[in-house]
Amino acid sequence: MKKILIINGPNLNLLGTREPQIYGEKGFEAILEDLRREFSDCTLEYTQSNHEGEIIDALQQSEHDGIVLNAGGYTHTSVAIRDAVSSVTVPVIEVHISNISARESFRHDSLISPVVEGCVFGFGTDGYALGIIAVLRIKK
Amino acid sequence: MKKILIINGPNLNLLGTREPQIYGEKGFEAILEDLRREFSDCTLEYTQSNHEGEIIDALQQSEHDGIVLNAGGYTHTSVAIRDAVSSVTVPVIEVHISNISARESFRHDSLISPVVEGCVFGFGTDGYALGIIAVLRIKK
Amino acid sequence: MKKILIINGPNLNLLGTREPQIYGEKGFEAILEDLRREFSDCTLEYTQSNHEGEIIDALQQSEHDGIVLNAGGYTHTSVAIRDAVSSVTVPVIEVHISNISARESFRHDSLISPVVEGCVFGFGTDGYALGIIAVLRIKK
Amino acid sequence: MKKILIINGPNLNLLGTREPQIYGEKGFEAILEDLRREFSDCTLEYTQSNHEGEIIDALQQSEHDGIVLNAGGYTHTSVAIRDAVSSVTVPVIEVHISNISARESFRHDSLISPVVEGCVFGFGTDGYALGIIAVLRIKK
Amino acid sequence: MKKILIINGPNLNLLGTREPQIYGEKGFEAILEDLRREFSDCTLEYTQSNHEGEIIDALQQSEHDGIVLNAGGYTHTSVAIRDAVSSVTVPVIEVHISNISARESFRHDSLISPVVEGCVFGFGTDGYALGIIAVLRIKK
Amino acid sequence: MKKILIINGPNLNLLGTREPQIYGEKGFEAILEDLRREFSDCTLEYTQSNHEGEIIDALQQSEHDGIVLNAGGYTHTSVAIRDAVSSVTVPVIEVHISNISARESFRHDSLISPVVEGCVFGFGTDGYALGIIAVLRIKK
Amino acid sequence: MKKILIINGPNLNLLGTREPQIYGEKGFEAILEDLRREFSDCTLEYTQSNHEGEIIDALQQSEHDGIVLNAGGYTHTSVAIRDAVSSVTVPVIEVHISNISARESFRHDSLISPVVEGCVFGFGTDGYALGIIAVLRIKK
Amino acid sequence: MKKILIINGPNLNLLGTREPQIYGEKGFEAILEDLRREFSDCTLEYTQSNHEGEIIDALQQSEHDGIVLNAGGYTHTSVAIRDAVSSVTVPVIEVHISNISARESFRHDSLISPVVEGCVFGFGTDGYALGIIAVLRIKK
Amino acid sequence: MKKILIINGPNLNLLGTREPQIYGEKGFEAILEDLRREFSDCTLEYTQSNHEGEIIDALQQSEHDGIVLNAGGYTHTSVAIRDAVSSVTVPVIEVHISNISARESFRHDSLISPVVEGCVFGFGTDGYALGIIAVLRIKK
Amino acid sequence: MKKILIINGPNLNLLGTREPQIYGEKGFEAILEDLRREFSDCTLEYTQSNHEGEIIDALQQSEHDGIVLNAGGYTHTSVAIRDAVSSVTVPVIEVHISNISARESFRHDSLISPVVEGCVFGFGTDGYALGIIAVLRIKK
Amino acid sequence: MKKILIINGPNLNLLGTREPQIYGEKGFEAILEDLRREFSDCTLEYTQSNHEGEIIDALQQSEHDGIVLNAGGYTHTSVAIRDAVSSVTVPVIEVHISNISARESFRHDSLISPVVEGCVFGFGTDGYALGIIAVLRIKK
Amino acid sequence: MKKILIINGPNLNLLGTREPQIYGEKGFEAILEDLRREFSDCTLEYTQSNHEGEIIDALQQSEHDGIVLNAGGYTHTSVAIRDAVSSVTVPVIEVHISNISARESFRHDSLISPVVEGCVFGFGTDGYALGIIAVLRIKK
Repeated sequence: MKKILIINGPNLNLLGTREPQIYGEKGFEAILEDLRREFSDCTLEYTQSNHEGEIIDALQQSEHDGIVLNAGGYTHTSVAIRDAVSSVTVPVIEVHISNISARESFRHDSLISPVVEGCVFGFGTDGYALGIIAVLRIKK
Repeated sequence: MKKILIINGPNLNLLGTREPQIYGEKGFEAILEDLRREFSDCTLEYTQSNHEGEIIDALQQSEHDGIVLNAGGYTHTSVAIRDAVSSVTVPVIEVHISNISARESFRHDSLISPVVEGCVFGFGTDGYALGIIAVLRIKK
Repeated sequence: MKKILIINGPNLNLLGTREPQIYGEKGFEAILEDLRREFSDCTLEYTQSNHEGEIIDALQQSEHDGIVLNAGGYTHTSVAIRDAVSSVTVPVIEVHISNISARESFRHDSLISPVVEGCVFGFGTDGYALGIIAVLRIKK
Repeated sequence: MKKILIINGPNLNLLGTREPQIYGEKGFEAILEDLRREFSDCTLEYTQSNHEGEIIDALQQSEHDGIVLNAGGYTHTSVAIRDAVSSVTVPVIEVHISNISARESFRHDSLISPVVEGCVFGFGTDGYALGIIAVLRIKK
Repeated sequence: MKKILIINGPNLNLLGTREPQIYGEKGFEAILEDLRREFSDCTLEYTQSNHEGEIIDALQQSEHDGIVLNAGGYTHTSVAIRDAVSSVTVPVIEVHISNISARESFRHDSLISPVVEGCVFGFGTDGYALGIIAVLRIKK
Repeated sequence: MKKILIINGPNLNLLGTREPQIYGEKGFEAILEDLRREFSDCTLEYTQSNHEGEIIDALQQSEHDGIVLNAGGYTHTSVAIRDAVSSVTVPVIEVHISNISARESFRHDSLISPVVEGCVFGFGTDGYALGIIAVLRIKK
Repeated sequence: MKKILIINGPNLNLLGTREPQIYGEKGFEAILEDLRREFSDCTLEYTQSNHEGEIIDALQQSEHDGIVLNAGGYTHTSVAIRDAVSSVTVPVIEVHISNISARESFRHDSLISPVVEGCVFGFGTDGYALGIIAVLRIKK
Repeated sequence: MKKILIINGPNLNLLGTREPQIYGEKGFEAILEDLRREFSDCTLEYTQSNHEGEIIDALQQSEHDGIVLNAGGYTHTSVAIRDAVSSVTVPVIEVHISNISARESFRHDSLISPVVEGCVFGFGTDGYALGIIAVLRIKK
Repeated sequence: MKKILIINGPNLNLLGTREPQIYGEKGFEAILEDLRREFSDCTLEYTQSNHEGEIIDALQQSEHDGIVLNAGGYTHTSVAIRDAVSSVTVPVIEVHISNISARESFRHDSLISPVVEGCVFGFGTDGYALGIIAVLRIKK
Repeated sequence: MKKILIINGPNLNLLGTREPQIYGEKGFEAILEDLRREFSDCTLEYTQSNHEGEIIDALQQSEHDGIVLNAGGYTHTSVAIRDAVSSVTVPVIEVHISNISARESFRHDSLISPVVEGCVFGFGTDGYALGIIAVLRIKK
Repeated sequence: MKKILIINGPNLNLLGTREPQIYGEKGFEAILEDLRREFSDCTLEYTQSNHEGEIIDALQQSEHDGIVLNAGGYTHTSVAIRDAVSSVTVPVIEVHISNISARESFRHDSLISPVVEGCVFGFGTDGYALGIIAVLRIKK
Repeated sequence: MKKILIINGPNLNLLGTREPQIYGEKGFEAILEDLRREFSDCTLEYTQSNHEGEIIDALQQSEHDGIVLNAGGYTHTSVAIRDAVSSVTVPVIEVHISNISARESFRHDSLISPVVEGCVFGFGTDGYALGIIAVLRIKK
């Protein structure tokens, strides 16, 4: 059975409770439950942190078959997370809930994109499912 | 039964025959066959053109439930295709075979991304399948 | 009797049917009829194309006393249309329906403006009439 | 009877006497006479100033049905005139005698364009007439 | 006998008839005749198009020993033609009639130069002959 | 008793009558009355001008214990006002009614900020009171 | 009784002990005591952290009537803190001890300013008092 | 006898009284007296204004054999003064007291320099004498 | 006996295990042992963290005679670490294993370099020894 | 008999001995011999220097019918050589062995190109022959 | 008797023989004679070089009371000459024959200007006399 | 016995005599003596030149086991020296006496850094010793 790690970055713990017009109305716990139901043939682990260092720790320590990463605001500023992604040998999929290229200009560039396996942007919280599907298809 | 249109832009007719290290070793006809087998519950139509105007025509005239668009080299230069995508009312998914943010800097920005439903970049030719899955999940 | 050519670029065939908040609610055929009624003392010919090359062809082959050109999305990206305008010896008037300097930054610069006779921007579809008036006043 | 205000900015009092290759050979008083003759069905008022503040004053105090504004050199540098134009509720038409996009690069961008009703550039001093026509057509 | 394809881009069909101070006074048909006389030991084929897509088609479909390409205004804007050049396996020589670095700044950068075999700029229409000579010398 | 000068720049005479969504619904005369009531232990003098030169004059001629300056649109373009502020020896406080960093990009940079004592931005018309409080606290 | 949270970012724990010419000679504990004495009619809570993530945590978990935030060096680099500020529904006031626009250019732009209620820059450590006053005046 | 006009821009009326480390310790009246003594064989007229428009007026109305212009802070921002200088037919010499290229970067570029006869920068208030000498040598 | 602190930033805990072509094949523990053997006449303390805040904490709390700092990915993005380095009074030496100016452009600029005592870049892991030698030579 | 001067700039004396993957495996003496054999109907003179000033001297003192110039690394930095080329009245042809637009970005722009007769880039050392052919064809 | 050194940079040995529309029709030897006649009360020494290093040598070895420097094309590119000027303790006056701000953009910035005593630009070859006058007035 | 070449660029012959606050108070001859005493187990050769070309010559002709290069002002402008360094096969160490990233912005980027073995910046004249140590450690 495949093990996939979902990592959510800063402020994504607020999903469902604040700014629902951008981030949707569902908390991530509920979303995770849906994902586990849909992808019952694999193990989904989850971690969220507002701390850049903890995201790096999580990437370094992961022992999974693939990672779905939404680095939130660190996406655009963290060379350190980029370097951690580079050091990971399993596929890392970058997910963003919103269409980052349609928002403020400082959100257009992702430091992380050039080192991931692939990107899934703009599908709302359904992007996590697409990220998992992408990992599973790569693993086939 | 859902109808989905796949539009490939310039040089993507060369898939499988040239520069396989970037674009893969399979021609799009073979890929399309695979896609039709996998997504037998929907109708996949396909068009490819090296002509910017024909891609605009195709977008304007489409009568489908969703569009998977790989605009190739026009991605980075065509305000006209962007405007055509804006005028389409069904979901348009932008797909790129390669990870465009890991290539030459003039490929980093997509004029089309800000007006599409969502983006799927870097998964090789499997990105088309992910684009179709994304359309189908939206339509649910 | 003066002959004036109106050239519309990509997506302007959608006038009246899509995005009416930007492009107005009237199709160009209806607008053209109004223009012919108002300017009954001159011959108005009209061509629209989504193809950059066809706009260049039209400019090269025109045998008119003046041209009213709305190059749509090609305005901001086409050195080739600019060169074709440069080679035309009758007055070319650049028209835009919307106020391009009030929209996205990539629409602020027109490659075509430096080589036209004059510019008429932001008056909605009435800009075509102003463009024709401008041509007629030059010809006086 | 419609009342239209024409505002000319700095150095436009020199029209006809200096640099005729750029600004033409006719003084604005003569041009104004021609305009009053052509547009005898409306009242044309005129003010010229080399002072940025007086142009702002004129915009704020105007009680007209439309304004034709050529802000001259302040076009490219005055946020203050832009703000004054924004506060005006009747149509303001921006006119430039020369084709500003074909001159020095610091003349390419107008701070005023994004807040006016429409722009008329490059038709020589005939641009004032086109500006008045534009106002009258809006008012119909 | 070597077969060489000459591709001319937009507006180069106007050679000899318009703007002779930039493009010279001879039409390309006459130039082609001269070239065929000079290079009688090889077959020169010729195509010209104002359409970006047709230039891509021509590049993809060529079965020659070398290509001399003057992409005209598309030189500075077409990622799509660049990608088509990249996919060609015989030498492509980029020719420009004028010295593009001595003209407007938007003509200084060629998107095509980085992927061609070599560049010949600024020798007037004699550049085509130099391009052919270059191809022939490579083929030795 | 402390004497404080409030200087308002261009278009701020329109406070309360135009664009109330940005500048509030109260005219500055009413605001000034409120301020005088609240700060009855100091003398508040007031000047407004649409003229850059008059603002410089006012700064040069002031004989106060502190100045609260809202230079309006000149904030972003006037080296001359900046130099006048530099020559003033009492504290100058820069106030903006709106949050300038949340508006158009040309409003993000203030030429004046680097030479003032301190900045108060974004508190609506209450910023003037905060500016006065700041002056008074410095003077203590 | 109002509850206000003061958040200090990295290196502000060094206030009073190091670089007094920039940050002043008083430690923040002493400043806080002064503030509590001056604003005895409200509760002032205080947190300082060198960790970006802890500042985000503090913003997310705050249950106060207003926040005075000096994000220190994270001001210029943290999209993540910006997003946390955006998610807070009570007024957040941005304070900087020094006049950031008069220092190195990388300190001129604040990623946080566009999403706060208002800004107080350059008043030395008195800026905290002004920030509290601003919160209290908003709450009136 | 030659007539030369010296025009000083904003804040130069403060010479000698404020910021002597930049502008020197002598007021311009005293400097003018010295200049008139040294250049007793020509008439020196003088005007100073903090108002951009008045400097333009002075340039337009001058009837002199040469002009020595120190536009102060307007040097870097005024297209309008530049245009007025362009319309003057006698030599205009640009003088700056300080070495503008050694100060803040926004003082490095002069909009006026490209249209003057010559530039004299950095010699302190002696630059006015050098400017007059330059005018006189041109007139020889 | 001198006490020197070595601080390693994010991902440098992976030395020797991942991406050996960039970071070398030896883990830092082994490197540290070598260093302690070579520099037996001084005390080498070591800390590594993936957390920006912990690096700041370490810099603030250090009681050493010198610091050798490799801030890893934070080098290019952390104003906060820069400020912490500024507050340290003993020499801080910046070390990078790779030649950062020969890598991606976002690694070319170090926010930390302008405030350190000196820089040692590109010598592989031997740079730590050079950094220690540099500290010792300064202390002589 | 035509006399042509070939000037090679810095490091081109190393041709054939170092970095053969860029500059080829043949020393320039051998190349020169080949050229003299091929172009036996003209006199080829040759000079190489690592000194910018000597290249300027050579250009100024040349008495030839044409010059083939490869300025090496000075191509991108030398206004002085550009000015020397401008002062030469016979045709100067710029040659580069490698395709400079396909190398590091600082090699993309040539300060010399805008003032030469024509450019020949990317043909390896065969570019010298093409440069000579170009000179001879111009001279016909 | 004062000793003044005039240093001319690259291509200024061509004065009078080439490009007279920019550099005038007189050779520098003739100009020097005129200068020696006019300034008979001081010793004028002269050196010209096309070599950057020789200009640096001349600056370092000068034992004069002032230097008039026209660094020609090195003005815009030479940090090394700038550093040499910085090390000179007598006044250095920068002279340019043409108005550099009215020519190509790469000539607008002088690396040397920020470190000289003063600048004299645009007066033709009369600028040398003005430079000498400036030195003499400083020395008074 | 190892042979190491030290190359000093322009103005470094002035060490100890001018601008001691930047370059120190010791002439390089004295420094060299110290270095020879400290590194008595290797041969130190030394060359200094103000001429870019001579530095290139020295690099090309060196027959040493390592080179310590301080290219002075040419560091930031010389592609030609960079190319010469690239052609050297023994380690080249770049040394700067001052911390170049803490000085004027045009000194922040070194064209040479990307092609050297390693960099030693900011340690004053002790940097030469560190450079030699670095060479010796590489050679071990």
